[in-house]
Amino acid sequence: MPYYEDIEIGYRRVTGSFTFTPENIKAFALKFDPQPFHLDEEAGRNSVFGGLAASGWHVAAVYMKLTVADFRRMDEEARARGEKPVASGPSPGFRELKWLRPVLAGDTLTYTSEVASKRTLESRPEWGLVAFRNAGTNQRGELAFSFLAQAFMPRRSAA
Amino acid sequence: MPYYEDIEIGYRRVTGSFTFTPENIKAFALKFDPQPFHLDEEAGRNSVFGGLAASGWHVAAVYMKLTVADFRRMDEEARARGEKPVASGPSPGFRELKWLRPVLAGDTLTYTSEVASKRTLESRPEWGLVAFRNAGTNQRGELAFSFLAQAFMPRRSAA
Repeated sequence: MPYYEDIEIGYRRVTGSFTFTPENIKAFALKFDPQPFHLDEEAGRNSVFGGLAASGWHVAAVYMKLTVADFRRMDEEARARGEKPVASGPSPGFRELKWLRPVLAGDTLTYTSEVASKRTLESRPEWGLVAFRNAGTNQRGELAFSFLAQAFMPRRSAA
Repeated sequence: MPYYEDIEIGYRRVTGSFTFTPENIKAFALKFDPQPFHLDEEAGRNSVFGGLAASGWHVAAVYMKLTVADFRRMDEEARARGEKPVASGPSPGFRELKWLRPVLAGDTLTYTSEVASKRTLESRPEWGLVAFRNAGTNQRGELAFSFLAQAFMPRRSAA
């Protein structure tokens, strides 16, 4: 992760891509969202989704999985520049999460993250708060998933 | 699930409880959020969380797991009253998700859901849109997790 000071508003990054398969859709649903349209092809076809559909929470968890892998890539890039990687801070939550289109078996989502805003905190001088507009777009270029994430990022001045 | 018409603003329901253990915290983190403070006790103690902490997405996915189990209980209650269970609709997303306190190994969250508002949709006369204030409170009575969920609920008039 970069330091708060090095984050530029408007910076956009492709976090990664993931293909939702009948197997991974059903495995997540069995553990966390066992509704028929997430577990069974025919129930999915007969639902408003029109096919076996990934749980919205699966779509969100995959965003996190790819983001952590991307953090590691950023750490490697920092080491390659001769810098020390920076530990990421916690997230206080997010806003406006939208499941805009069903994610069906066979769909590949590409997740992106764009810096929307940033601000320092009088109450916590060691952290800055950064808002990211995160999105997931399917193989047809349709926006399927978006949310406004917030994360505390360490300040260089506190390092 | 009840029909849209039968949902009363202010109705509150305990969805269920769940104890986060080192085992289930690490199993989720390995798959979806492999950051050190979600995977290792010592890394957790040395982090801002102060202990092995559940991924926020794990806390959210458990809410969904308990909600689906609660849907089934509502279906059984409907059948016991001699009514036909109603299939739930999709969710377009949610707002204001907040991770207010760390959820550490050994914590038990009790999740609740309260009907915050409801409205009909001119564009989709077969559905109404209901907003729920969902929350997770730990064994000390501290609010750890909350969000404002939205769900399409079938209208009796369209049944």
